Amino acid sequence: MQTPWDFRYAQRTQRMKASAIRELLKLTEQPDVISFAGGLPAPEVFPVEEFRRACNYVLDHQGAEALQYGTTDGYVPLCEMIARYTNRLGIGVSKDNILITSGSQQALDLIGKIFINHGDRILVENPTYLGAIQAWNAYGADYIPVALDDEGMDTRQLEDALRKGPKFIYVLPNFQNPTGCTLTLERRKQLIKLADQYGVPIIEDDPYGQLRYEGDDLPAVELLDSQMRDKTNAYSGNVIYLSTFSKILAPGIRLAWVIAPTEVINKLVLAKQGADLHTSTFNQIVAHEVGQHGYLDRHVKLIQDTYRERRNVMVESLEEHMPNGVTWTNPQGGLFLWVNMPEQINAIEMFKDAVIQKVAYVPGENFFACGGGENSMRLNFSCTKPELINEGIARLSKVIKAKLREG
Amino acid sequence: MQTPWDFRYAQRTQRMKASAIRELLKLTEQPDVISFAGGLPAPEVFPVEEFRRACNYVLDHQGAEALQYGTTDGYVPLCEMIARYTNRLGIGVSKDNILITSGSQQALDLIGKIFINHGDRILVENPTYLGAIQAWNAYGADYIPVALDDEGMDTRQLEDALRKGPKFIYVLPNFQNPTGCTLTLERRKQLIKLADQYGVPIIEDDPYGQLRYEGDDLPAVELLDSQMRDKTNAYSGNVIYLSTFSKILAPGIRLAWVIAPTEVINKLVLAKQGADLHTSTFNQIVAHEVGQHGYLDRHVKLIQDTYRERRNVMVESLEEHMPNGVTWTNPQGGLFLWVNMPEQINAIEMFKDAVIQKVAYVPGENFFACGGGENSMRLNFSCTKPELINEGIARLSKVIKAKLREG
Repeated sequence: MQTPWDFRYAQRTQRMKASAIRELLKLTEQPDVISFAGGLPAPEVFPVEEFRRACNYVLDHQGAEALQYGTTDGYVPLCEMIARYTNRLGIGVSKDNILITSGSQQALDLIGKIFINHGDRILVENPTYLGAIQAWNAYGADYIPVALDDEGMDTRQLEDALRKGPKFIYVLPNFQNPTGCTLTLERRKQLIKLADQYGVPIIEDDPYGQLRYEGDDLPAVELLDSQMRDKTNAYSGNVIYLSTFSKILAPGIRLAWVIAPTEVINKLVLAKQGADLHTSTFNQIVAHEVGQHGYLDRHVKLIQDTYRERRNVMVESLEEHMPNGVTWTNPQGGLFLWVNMPEQINAIEMFKDAVIQKVAYVPGENFFACGGGENSMRLNFSCTKPELINEGIARLSKVIKAKLREG
Repeated sequence: MQTPWDFRYAQRTQRMKASAIRELLKLTEQPDVISFAGGLPAPEVFPVEEFRRACNYVLDHQGAEALQYGTTDGYVPLCEMIARYTNRLGIGVSKDNILITSGSQQALDLIGKIFINHGDRILVENPTYLGAIQAWNAYGADYIPVALDDEGMDTRQLEDALRKGPKFIYVLPNFQNPTGCTLTLERRKQLIKLADQYGVPIIEDDPYGQLRYEGDDLPAVELLDSQMRDKTNAYSGNVIYLSTFSKILAPGIRLAWVIAPTEVINKLVLAKQGADLHTSTFNQIVAHEVGQHGYLDRHVKLIQDTYRERRNVMVESLEEHMPNGVTWTNPQGGLFLWVNMPEQINAIEMFKDAVIQKVAYVPGENFFACGGGENSMRLNFSCTKPELINEGIARLSKVIKAKLREG
């Protein structure tokens, strides 16, 4: 249908591309496909009963408040709960350093809105989280990619990248999406030192930090940065930190948070007023009610136990089935692992064969801001029951072996 | 605190201003102030019990789905419900013409994102809805204001304004925020004719259309436009239509919708993917459950009865108390009426005196995209109980009379 809107799109709209992943996911929705393609939490660990209790309690006691408009910065008791949680990690923030967002995706969008001019360059891990690229493309961002290895962003390449003048550094230090890699303590310190030297601030995106299945927690970049500057642990403000309830509670309620200097929070609040006024009051009050009395800590333990088993099964299955020349990461937490195949294999071309064999993944190429990764793929282990993981990996190995025989 | 973020804001961030209204509202939060300043629905008419029933039902039957990630375009049964509702009004749309947004504020933001280049001019009513200005300022919009009178946008001035080359026309035809005025049938037709003649499309923002307290419903601009082109009532696509559950259900769940040509919906979906991935699955499924079996129609009747009484009390109180030279609109629906005072009175300067007298309003100046309206104010009647409205208007009259004596 021809409409007068057709020739009225803004220039930035040309830069908005349909996510290849979401298109792929549609192909994998047949129930007999074992899909490692999504990034979904396991519905088996959703706290449905606790939610029901909280909804009833909130509607009993605060019904009018929960259904009314709220303030843009967020429901104060929820901000205070997040501040207390952050203080427990050693970082001295108050509720005024916190903004509640409609998922971390909104935090990425608002950060783009207040910071990115057309043509600004953002330093990113290579590969990196696709949602950040999608949000920032709309503001005309360019990217300076820095390679990753098993120890996270390769800080030996960082200085060269910093010389190119990035506006900020974007890093996912824990169980990164897509690779599952974790930035080592040594490299965290390197990153902070170099960022400080070049006066470039850092966005730390940490959706999975609490989902560690083995080893010790590493200090957040935000915490290390504050400690390296000031023995009192007062929040330094150099690192903007993002986290979310999507992985530790439920993504369907769209609740996440930003920690930033109050001045940055004030600008983000202005941007959010224009973007959606505020995040659902009802969901914020219910999430606060669910998070009371230590429930979240207990619930996170259940999620860890569930996902640890799934990760173990996936890694064992890869060891059992995969041909020589295929390697993978062994993440200590999170939802994903990363597979590198021999160079002659193109993961996008192979995708159709995989769907015919009733197994799916995300071709790694999608996560590279400036190209690359044609022979890689991301596998999700959180959302497939253990008994199906082995079968899925067996199917995938079969597809790869067939491709290798082809040539 | 000095941080490296301080000098890194984007140019557009300079255009984001704190809403004067929200700052004013903070002054009016003392419990003994009778505030006509907000734009809140009355909490007495929130369907708390129906919500509780729906939350329990949804968590019982669809808990895993309701707490999981959803699709960007929206929960299909909710889109279908909105399509059926729209069809009932005579407009032939399908669910593919509908996008669920996180409040209409998000719809305005996404429209700005996909259509507005820096320097584009938007034709707006003068005064107009502040949230639209706030959303579009971030994209560098300029404005072509067209005066309003009791019959809505003055279409005699429209042709001159259209010659200035606006990208689109933004109009609130029913019980406009802030004035309460309704665009007459004659002027709706004029608007459509002239818009068509100049090839300029229309955004119709209709948050209050269902809240009519007297008189007959007028056809939506979207419907008239379709009828004037095509006797079959197929949706013409020239008008993008916005409405919301905020006023007929509850604003705290942040649920609204856009009706647009499928191609525009596809672009809005791309923009929304980057902006917040999707609107809360839980809230969409619960709202769909609440809206089943004719509940919404019955509930809207209760809201109409409640607000009609409050409007009547406010208009009667104005007649009783206001001095000569003060005039006001008598809206047939919605949440607001508009007061014009003698020219020597400045509503912003008078605001402090009003708060001292424990009454509050929004100075009209805030709603003018390019200045004006210094002697006007917006009064909200939906959120104050009838017994307090008369007292509040009496206080306000006292403040105005004192100002008139001064000046």
